[in-house]
Amino acid sequence: MLFAVKMDVHLPPDMDSDVKADILAREKAYSQEVQTSGEWPHIWRCVGQYSNLSIFDVDSNQRLHDILSQLPLFPYMHIDVTPLATHPSDIALLERNP
Amino acid sequence: MLFAVKMDVHLPPDMDSDVKADILAREKAYSQEVQTSGEWPHIWRCVGQYSNLSIFDVDSNQRLHDILSQLPLFPYMHIDVTPLATHPSDIALLERNP
Amino acid sequence: MLFAVKMDVHLPPDMDSDVKADILAREKAYSQEVQTSGEWPHIWRCVGQYSNLSIFDVDSNQRLHDILSQLPLFPYMHIDVTPLATHPSDIALLERNP
Amino acid sequence: MLFAVKMDVHLPPDMDSDVKADILAREKAYSQEVQTSGEWPHIWRCVGQYSNLSIFDVDSNQRLHDILSQLPLFPYMHIDVTPLATHPSDIALLERNP
Amino acid sequence: MLFAVKMDVHLPPDMDSDVKADILAREKAYSQEVQTSGEWPHIWRCVGQYSNLSIFDVDSNQRLHDILSQLPLFPYMHIDVTPLATHPSDIALLERNP
Amino acid sequence: MLFAVKMDVHLPPDMDSDVKADILAREKAYSQEVQTSGEWPHIWRCVGQYSNLSIFDVDSNQRLHDILSQLPLFPYMHIDVTPLATHPSDIALLERNP
Amino acid sequence: MLFAVKMDVHLPPDMDSDVKADILAREKAYSQEVQTSGEWPHIWRCVGQYSNLSIFDVDSNQRLHDILSQLPLFPYMHIDVTPLATHPSDIALLERNP
Amino acid sequence: MLFAVKMDVHLPPDMDSDVKADILAREKAYSQEVQTSGEWPHIWRCVGQYSNLSIFDVDSNQRLHDILSQLPLFPYMHIDVTPLATHPSDIALLERNP
Amino acid sequence: MLFAVKMDVHLPPDMDSDVKADILAREKAYSQEVQTSGEWPHIWRCVGQYSNLSIFDVDSNQRLHDILSQLPLFPYMHIDVTPLATHPSDIALLERNP
Amino acid sequence: MLFAVKMDVHLPPDMDSDVKADILAREKAYSQEVQTSGEWPHIWRCVGQYSNLSIFDVDSNQRLHDILSQLPLFPYMHIDVTPLATHPSDIALLERNP
Repeated sequence: MLFAVKMDVHLPPDMDSDVKADILAREKAYSQEVQTSGEWPHIWRCVGQYSNLSIFDVDSNQRLHDILSQLPLFPYMHIDVTPLATHPSDIALLERNP
Repeated sequence: MLFAVKMDVHLPPDMDSDVKADILAREKAYSQEVQTSGEWPHIWRCVGQYSNLSIFDVDSNQRLHDILSQLPLFPYMHIDVTPLATHPSDIALLERNP
Repeated sequence: MLFAVKMDVHLPPDMDSDVKADILAREKAYSQEVQTSGEWPHIWRCVGQYSNLSIFDVDSNQRLHDILSQLPLFPYMHIDVTPLATHPSDIALLERNP
Repeated sequence: MLFAVKMDVHLPPDMDSDVKADILAREKAYSQEVQTSGEWPHIWRCVGQYSNLSIFDVDSNQRLHDILSQLPLFPYMHIDVTPLATHPSDIALLERNP
Repeated sequence: MLFAVKMDVHLPPDMDSDVKADILAREKAYSQEVQTSGEWPHIWRCVGQYSNLSIFDVDSNQRLHDILSQLPLFPYMHIDVTPLATHPSDIALLERNP
Repeated sequence: MLFAVKMDVHLPPDMDSDVKADILAREKAYSQEVQTSGEWPHIWRCVGQYSNLSIFDVDSNQRLHDILSQLPLFPYMHIDVTPLATHPSDIALLERNP
Repeated sequence: MLFAVKMDVHLPPDMDSDVKADILAREKAYSQEVQTSGEWPHIWRCVGQYSNLSIFDVDSNQRLHDILSQLPLFPYMHIDVTPLATHPSDIALLERNP
Repeated sequence: MLFAVKMDVHLPPDMDSDVKADILAREKAYSQEVQTSGEWPHIWRCVGQYSNLSIFDVDSNQRLHDILSQLPLFPYMHIDVTPLATHPSDIALLERNP
Repeated sequence: MLFAVKMDVHLPPDMDSDVKADILAREKAYSQEVQTSGEWPHIWRCVGQYSNLSIFDVDSNQRLHDILSQLPLFPYMHIDVTPLATHPSDIALLERNP
Repeated sequence: MLFAVKMDVHLPPDMDSDVKADILAREKAYSQEVQTSGEWPHIWRCVGQYSNLSIFDVDSNQRLHDILSQLPLFPYMHIDVTPLATHPSDIALLERNP
């Protein structure tokens, strides 16, 4: 089940640089762990913004919230979630039903 | 070069049903032609909306506009375009630079 | 899997009254059929608006879109979808894990 | 009398962790007390947000304000209130008037 | 139980003048009937707008929706409802609790 | 001359509790003084918000600004002002012109 | 008593040209009559928009609404009203209180 | 004197094709005439939108409004105007003041 | 050349009172100096807001930015600029072209 | 490949003046270096705002993000990016295809 998730990061301008480096390292490690699991198949940087657009592939709303709320940067993010479904023009449908 | 494109469709409620069937058939054929070319790798339906979220992979801004402005539904769409770049946490980078 | 869905209805002011009566009757019948199935456990009227707030309980994003896009009033609606998860303070959790 | 209430929580990023733990514990206890009373029949987490969507069942506007303004997190919340009424398609009406 | 209600009227510019005169006459009569009942204690024109700000005093959300949805202009209105409670600085409280 | 005034209060979360108690006491005293004068005939709490909706009855725009800008909480408020006029359906007009 | 008033005009694109010429002529005549009276001291065109920014000098909210609601283009306008007061830095105050 | 101007075009979906072809031809001719004069040095298409971003170089606000309001598509456009000034980091300043 | 300028002031709530008094005194002196020059013909307080609406009469966009960016309160302001032109209904035109 | 980029700068009001002077000097040097390379052909100040409107001419989305994210002021900016294409009315096309 797919979801589009836009994450905007707002770090306090006076954040201690060691604290910042640590949280960013943990964020990257956690993100890569979830990507490796197959539940976070796409992550792109939005040009000119401290934001990403991601696609998640999870079993439930609950699982998506559990992943997102454990992001080390979660307290500093504004997150928008868009549930996705198959588009009737998607050529992947043709391949499945030739 | 990747772009996220959100397309919202607003058809006039009194559109002639034959005109509507024709434009939707041409939209689907055109979309599938561009998908087959590889320039439109993803298209998803946004749940509960007459909208799609798509990813385009094109050589230039100009090419993206040419594709979008030739959509048969273009006169009935509101379109938002977000240029995308590689995200530093993307595990695809690890594979390329192991 | 729960979703909150807000539906705002915008009928054209010059809609034929028979056409309107027919579509509203079909909307009600369809809504009640889905409610009876258990997939639409709550529907409330928002005071002072031609809108409802509903809770859906479905197996997937795809199923939710299929239900919503088959609403007879779908072409006249603006719909917002909010995926829901369990709240950690919900007393229902206490009952399940006493 | 039903109300839909959306609560968005914004804690200061530099909040002391003991202060935070204390306020969250008091929030949970208070919420569960009101839920147990029957006046707060539903509380759901909005996926990807530090927010909840709740349904309240109270005797008056005044009672709803009294409950909400006593939430320990009230000073840190943005709250939207939507008064609800019975929807004419609700199958619960059929059961009452068979 | 008090509610502030803002009503914005949007009549189609090509509405037949007899139809318009009839609906406005019925709106005025209905409004004055509800005002006389005591459930609509205040109605003010917002300067420069085809809008009113009103205060309703009703027994329930349901009653408020029933009144508003029966307004002859209801299909042409955008309506915002704000539930009200007693303000702790209101001097009327002093009079009640001297 | 009537005005609807919506006041939203935003106190800094780390405001000293004595400073806060003092400013709230002065706000209440000042508000009640203006209410007693007849220039502030209504003040209501907006449910679930640290906000009020008020009606002022003053001789001029200038007088309204003087009252509002002297509110002890003025530096912490966002204020919206809506000038009001008589509504042609107001039954008070019938009483004046029977 | 001064008010800033922004008026945005939205004429239907298919308005009959004679009807349009007539309403614009009446709008201009009426506007100039009120300007001559001294109650509409300033009217400016907002560059690139079918809009004006005006200053009105009237005795009451009621008078302002009466002027605006009698504009021939009133049914085609969106109007925003901002009540104005004297600014403490205005040098006109120096001249009055030298 | 420079201005950035964003023009969004909204043609009625049922516009007669000859009327549309004529207005678009006149728009193009007029635009190119002003471009040739030097007062409209840049015009770009915004990707995926029926919109342009333009830079105008004119002697006055009045001249800009005269140019824009004579655009054949003016009645179908939403226009935003941003006055521009020299940026202190512009390297053109270095060339002028070496 | 005229411009309407709306300035909203947002001072930090914990600004030192001497610093504040000093900046406000400098703001007033600077504003009155520009007013005296004739380039700032109108300044009004917006009722209930820490905001002003002003009219500037300057030779260029550049001059307007120079004036605004030297305001002592500039770092604390949100500023909106609207370029103005002559309105065709302005009676001042009649006087010039009798 | 052209992009319009709007950058709004929000410096904390209590930023140390030496830190501020240093970051502004680095911003200017970096901006001028990119301008000199030809990838940042236009930069304009938006009148009355601590903002610029710029045109970038780069080979890819990735290159644009790399330039923008290395701006010393990047952590203090809100940035909007609009991809641009050739406009069919641009007279530069005539010159290329006479």
